[in-house]
Amino acid sequence: SVTTKAKGVTVTNTSTLGFRVWDVADYVIPAQEENSLFIMTNMITTINQTQGLCPELPDKTTVCKSDANCAAGSSGVHSNGIATGRCVLFNGTVKTCEVAAWCPVEDDTHVPDPAFLKAAENFTLLVKNNIWYPKFNFSKRNILPNTTTAYLKSCIYDAVTDPFCPIFRLGKIVQDAGHSFQDMAVEGGIMGIQINWDCNLDRTAALCLPRYSFRRLDTRDVDHNVSPGYNFRFAKYYSDPTGTEHRTLIKAYGIRFDIIVFGKAGKFDIIPTMINIGSGLALLGVATVLCDVIVLYCMKKRFYYREKKYKYVEDYEQGLGGEMDQ
Amino acid sequence: SVTTKAKGVTVTNTSTLGFRVWDVADYVIPAQEENSLFIMTNMITTINQTQGLCPELPDKTTVCKSDANCAAGSSGVHSNGIATGRCVLFNGTVKTCEVAAWCPVEDDTHVPDPAFLKAAENFTLLVKNNIWYPKFNFSKRNILPNTTTAYLKSCIYDAVTDPFCPIFRLGKIVQDAGHSFQDMAVEGGIMGIQINWDCNLDRTAALCLPRYSFRRLDTRDVDHNVSPGYNFRFAKYYSDPTGTEHRTLIKAYGIRFDIIVFGKAGKFDIIPTMINIGSGLALLGVATVLCDVIVLYCMKKRFYYREKKYKYVEDYEQGLGGEMDQ
Amino acid sequence: SVTTKAKGVTVTNTSTLGFRVWDVADYVIPAQEENSLFIMTNMITTINQTQGLCPELPDKTTVCKSDANCAAGSSGVHSNGIATGRCVLFNGTVKTCEVAAWCPVEDDTHVPDPAFLKAAENFTLLVKNNIWYPKFNFSKRNILPNTTTAYLKSCIYDAVTDPFCPIFRLGKIVQDAGHSFQDMAVEGGIMGIQINWDCNLDRTAALCLPRYSFRRLDTRDVDHNVSPGYNFRFAKYYSDPTGTEHRTLIKAYGIRFDIIVFGKAGKFDIIPTMINIGSGLALLGVATVLCDVIVLYCMKKRFYYREKKYKYVEDYEQGLGGEMDQ
Repeated sequence: SVTTKAKGVTVTNTSTLGFRVWDVADYVIPAQEENSLFIMTNMITTINQTQGLCPELPDKTTVCKSDANCAAGSSGVHSNGIATGRCVLFNGTVKTCEVAAWCPVEDDTHVPDPAFLKAAENFTLLVKNNIWYPKFNFSKRNILPNTTTAYLKSCIYDAVTDPFCPIFRLGKIVQDAGHSFQDMAVEGGIMGIQINWDCNLDRTAALCLPRYSFRRLDTRDVDHNVSPGYNFRFAKYYSDPTGTEHRTLIKAYGIRFDIIVFGKAGKFDIIPTMINIGSGLALLGVATVLCDVIVLYCMKKRFYYREKKYKYVEDYEQGLGGEMDQ
Repeated sequence: SVTTKAKGVTVTNTSTLGFRVWDVADYVIPAQEENSLFIMTNMITTINQTQGLCPELPDKTTVCKSDANCAAGSSGVHSNGIATGRCVLFNGTVKTCEVAAWCPVEDDTHVPDPAFLKAAENFTLLVKNNIWYPKFNFSKRNILPNTTTAYLKSCIYDAVTDPFCPIFRLGKIVQDAGHSFQDMAVEGGIMGIQINWDCNLDRTAALCLPRYSFRRLDTRDVDHNVSPGYNFRFAKYYSDPTGTEHRTLIKAYGIRFDIIVFGKAGKFDIIPTMINIGSGLALLGVATVLCDVIVLYCMKKRFYYREKKYKYVEDYEQGLGGEMDQ
Repeated sequence: SVTTKAKGVTVTNTSTLGFRVWDVADYVIPAQEENSLFIMTNMITTINQTQGLCPELPDKTTVCKSDANCAAGSSGVHSNGIATGRCVLFNGTVKTCEVAAWCPVEDDTHVPDPAFLKAAENFTLLVKNNIWYPKFNFSKRNILPNTTTAYLKSCIYDAVTDPFCPIFRLGKIVQDAGHSFQDMAVEGGIMGIQINWDCNLDRTAALCLPRYSFRRLDTRDVDHNVSPGYNFRFAKYYSDPTGTEHRTLIKAYGIRFDIIVFGKAGKFDIIPTMINIGSGLALLGVATVLCDVIVLYCMKKRFYYREKKYKYVEDYEQGLGGEMDQ
């Protein structure tokens, strides 16, 4: 079983949102998951959306000259709503088809770069992992017995100096995987935190230690960069005094940390050993056959051997075979 | 690693909710999950619930004649609240036990049919999957190298015409699994999207391609249909100007899409090959034994063979055995 | 595939929250997960937080005499916000550094004990599990064919009397795992519900039945109790009439139930059988060798045997070998 817990606070100051503090409850979505944790690093916020009618974002499909260009009721897979069939002004110059949607529609053409919550690089992630090998009824956790609470409060994982501290700096995780956190933060991605328990249970349990390694799970080959990163949309719903509902739509870019636990517990077992030995011996059988072949067909004195090998039965065949026929 | 992303918008027009547009942020709950995505297709909404006292829904346990029928403080597993012990009017005719609960209590006796968001059939689901075989350090994604962004924007998976497009129409998924989307949408269910990577790494990596298949994971045998479908409850919380909290309770029926990735990467390896050959040879050993058995016990001239086979040692036993005794 | 559903209602009456009813939508977070369900059993609520400036909680790092003690902009990993650099009164006596944060800051020093929602012990959990063995194309669900809806409404799992009822009392689960629910409820934890399908498909499918077992997955050794339990923070966001956002921060302690399905379907298969037999036979080969060794080197009449064994070829070597040399 795996549990994770993030820590860290940062502030942002933007025109739309003003001065804002971000803490765990704000940037971890959803609040808890199994074996996984998503940390929002970048976002496109569309505040105060309400149900209504508004012009679509202008793109090659939505720009229109007249209502004739807008088919009522139609809804492209990538559109934000259902077209009403009217062609209205999007701004002073451009006209686009009107849609019934959460208005104003989201404009996600420009992804903030650098990432909105770039300070997430210094957030920390505590990973608690318990393993259990039912076969050997052996269990252990990645917080080692000699760990003190004080140590746990202060330590930060480092492959060299601190390989058994279960608290990771997000920036460090990405860096150890050979990527740049700031790049990754912009469009999001998925990091794998691999906990490798490689235990030889013939030896003492104290030698059974976790090894951490990090991989980026969403390979992005620069040469062919189709739909990169990781993002999703969610909304916070409010109701104003009049009771009408409005929401803040957030397109969240971020890094999902998947904790992958694998490990094999080794213990000497007789069965497979015997099976392998057996097969091995059988292979020796080939030797006999080879010897015969060499002796009977290759050596110059082969006929003698052949004679010997097949002599007696032949004799009797001839001798007795005759008698019997009488 | 797997990431999913749904797209699609629909409108509904009901008496309780009025005209309403539904987009991704509304019907995907929770906003993100690992290897899984839930899409709400049907719902029972109970708006404006507040903490308070109200009569239970009438059923055989809650209908009452007088307070005597209602045990205060009791709470059936299926009741919506804690009984106050009073018996109050549910409507003009029926009296039920009063409960302390979120009021009004939810009435989920009638599941909307056809499904409330039946248009979800045309929503699309983009599945991004990266595989990695640590053993061979081979990694690949289901968005193939030759895929262009333009193609990705337009394509829809089809087993025949478009087997490598990672965008699926929900209706198509259910249909390919041999079920009806509209039936499934009403009570919900679970669909498995299986991505099968069956790669022979001795051949070129370009031949290592994903194959998609779909299965309904919640078998529902029509003859024995106990607690079918898939649904859960969640609430959106609001606070009105006076600060008192109220909520909208939603019983969400929907389809959960679990993405199941499996695949084996084959590569010729000598060890297991030898083990199998070895065992095979050993089995040949049986042949010898069989021959002997036939020759020594079945053939009519068996005694000669037997004589031959066991002759010499016996001779010596007799001959020399005697000498030695002297 | 696994789906879970919790049921149960309880009431609490505290000074901060007043009289409050808790139902599924309130204590299950998030509303749905794959193979997992979190039930909140204890909580620390900080209501009406708004973005602002407020003094930190007093602890050895935050208590200050003057502004000099507070470095502006600094943010400890465990602090609730970004220090402004001012030293302000926390209460009549203590002064702490001021931070920009969600104010007032959360005070989670005292975990409620007994647990806030201790009544969760009587909540029930319905687990629906469908298995499918692709290899044998055999599928089954843990709601057995003979189960009726009426039975399902009333039954509660019990290892002895009711081993096939898929509805579990939370208290019973923890108890069967050998722990105390009330202890666990305070700081939270993780329970594993193991469903074991051990099917011999050579026999009838009706004998293929699920066995349930329960384990606590977060081992807590009392002697070394570092960061025990399971908790996380989430927030409910509101906006007041003026449009400013405030939230209720909840530090949720609770029990996460992970459903772990494992099982092997056995069916007689010829291939592995032969491989093992083969290896077995090969091992018999050792017998021959041993016999020879004993006969030829250990027994007192060994020379005769040796003579016999190697006689003929030797003869001919001498006899004919000479002829040929001529």
